Amino acid sequence: MNRALDNDGKNSLEYIVTFDLKQHLTKQASRIETVLDKLLNDAVLDEEMARPPRLLAAMRHGALNGGKRLRPILVMETAKLFGRDDDGVLLAASALELVHCYSLVHDDLPAMDDDDLRRGRPTVHRAFDEATAILAGDALLTLAFDVIANEDVHDDPAVRLRLSRELSRAAGIGGMAGGQMLDLESEHRDRSEAEIRTLQSMKTGALLRYACRAGAFLAGAPVADLERMSRFGDVIGLAFQLADDLLDVESNPEAMGKATGKDAEAGKATLVGLWGVEKTRAELNKLLNESETLLAVYEGRAVSLAAIADYIVSRSN
Amino acid sequence: MNRALDNDGKNSLEYIVTFDLKQHLTKQASRIETVLDKLLNDAVLDEEMARPPRLLAAMRHGALNGGKRLRPILVMETAKLFGRDDDGVLLAASALELVHCYSLVHDDLPAMDDDDLRRGRPTVHRAFDEATAILAGDALLTLAFDVIANEDVHDDPAVRLRLSRELSRAAGIGGMAGGQMLDLESEHRDRSEAEIRTLQSMKTGALLRYACRAGAFLAGAPVADLERMSRFGDVIGLAFQLADDLLDVESNPEAMGKATGKDAEAGKATLVGLWGVEKTRAELNKLLNESETLLAVYEGRAVSLAAIADYIVSRSN
Repeated sequence: MNRALDNDGKNSLEYIVTFDLKQHLTKQASRIETVLDKLLNDAVLDEEMARPPRLLAAMRHGALNGGKRLRPILVMETAKLFGRDDDGVLLAASALELVHCYSLVHDDLPAMDDDDLRRGRPTVHRAFDEATAILAGDALLTLAFDVIANEDVHDDPAVRLRLSRELSRAAGIGGMAGGQMLDLESEHRDRSEAEIRTLQSMKTGALLRYACRAGAFLAGAPVADLERMSRFGDVIGLAFQLADDLLDVESNPEAMGKATGKDAEAGKATLVGLWGVEKTRAELNKLLNESETLLAVYEGRAVSLAAIADYIVSRSN
Repeated sequence: MNRALDNDGKNSLEYIVTFDLKQHLTKQASRIETVLDKLLNDAVLDEEMARPPRLLAAMRHGALNGGKRLRPILVMETAKLFGRDDDGVLLAASALELVHCYSLVHDDLPAMDDDDLRRGRPTVHRAFDEATAILAGDALLTLAFDVIANEDVHDDPAVRLRLSRELSRAAGIGGMAGGQMLDLESEHRDRSEAEIRTLQSMKTGALLRYACRAGAFLAGAPVADLERMSRFGDVIGLAFQLADDLLDVESNPEAMGKATGKDAEAGKATLVGLWGVEKTRAELNKLLNESETLLAVYEGRAVSLAAIADYIVSRSN
């Protein structure tokens, strides 16, 4: 899991720094978990709202599952890099995680990827039923647009509105939902490298890109930084997908907490399938190098973001 | 379909006025259809976005179906009552209709109400497949929050943001999605009148209420008018549900363009089931009277809104 451990050229100091960062990321994930728990509680944002207990329970099952919280942590670390670290950032980050969680609930449905397990627990439609899972996903997605509009996110309504709109585009037909459609269509069909890249940049990349942009935007970073963070998001998005595909090829279900080898079984086109494992690893390292180059301008201040990029790549080692 | 025709006490002038209003409503519906067609086209809001053709086609199937466009027309007529009638209102109205259409696509799914027909055509999961229908619903909902953020909707980002947030709450766990959950849970279970009213005010009422509020808010109506329109939305929301339940009890499938008698078959609790047809009709007339009282302050200027209330009630005659 830790690249420093595998590389003889790294010194022990780097190992210690990396280790502390892992603790930091765990702490950040637990901050997100706390906010999500609060958002998905009977004590509601709008006191007039009734919340059907079964639907709330299903939403909680889908969202409070001890995930890595990679996307919201990217929002938080990017915002911190540009000088902001407060409850408003946490809310914006949580809105993004709600969108991610909705997508997992729907992707797991029988009509989609048909998964029974997610992080070692029954998926929402297994723990409840299909109708409830569809509604829970719908309601998580809908809630995200309530949360991102919260006054605490940013003083300027125009900033909250822009985040809302960018989130919508990252999640919609031109982003995640469109990517999932292409992914379903790619079953048992040959796809070119360009087609797979488009698919993955939409399905996985769009939300990761948004995460890095949102953090920069929340903190009022200059345009050059916003664009650099967009590229950083693209790079780790692609790295994430390659690492995920490698894990699917190589892991066992126990280690993953979900079914593996499903891509090949479903006849899904992946870059690993096109390139093989070795070339994929080489590409991953290229992406890691590019991410380091992008962050170099921030010197030591982007150490958390660098650690996240490193983690994304190394988790497939 | 026309109350004036059934009431001997009404003079022929009222009949003519009502008839012209029906033409007007048809014209308004076609304006909405045009905007939806434009929003769901290859020529996209954000030119960088790729739009997978199959998903776009499914979204179009779910949204461009010649519906009555009751909710967006309520936005338009309410905004016009308070002095605004332009493309921004049309966009805001269309965003609401996208949310309504997403809910129909998902509600029709096999795991939910399992409907094969919607307005005489195959439902989205029948015309495409279940996975595509789930994604099409997701993407329609997501697109709504892109559209409502459009600069043309209102000069003030704070107004657009508030609309976005109110739309999210009307559609989410405390509104439509929560109401659909309660509706599914009400199958083969006795429900009290209060429980059915809560269910219906969430499932159907929340979006109709939002429609009337949004129009008033877009036009900058004073708070007293905004509250009056909220109540008007509540009243026609309940009337709509009662009329719908009556239609389900009494109609034949050909007239409705979808399956009927499904509530009783599914063992769903309705107020018609609790009250019987006669009392339901009496309640409907009370609601119509309340809507007329609410609109009386606007004299002739609210004639379209009055006609809509009348239409909602009379379509079950």
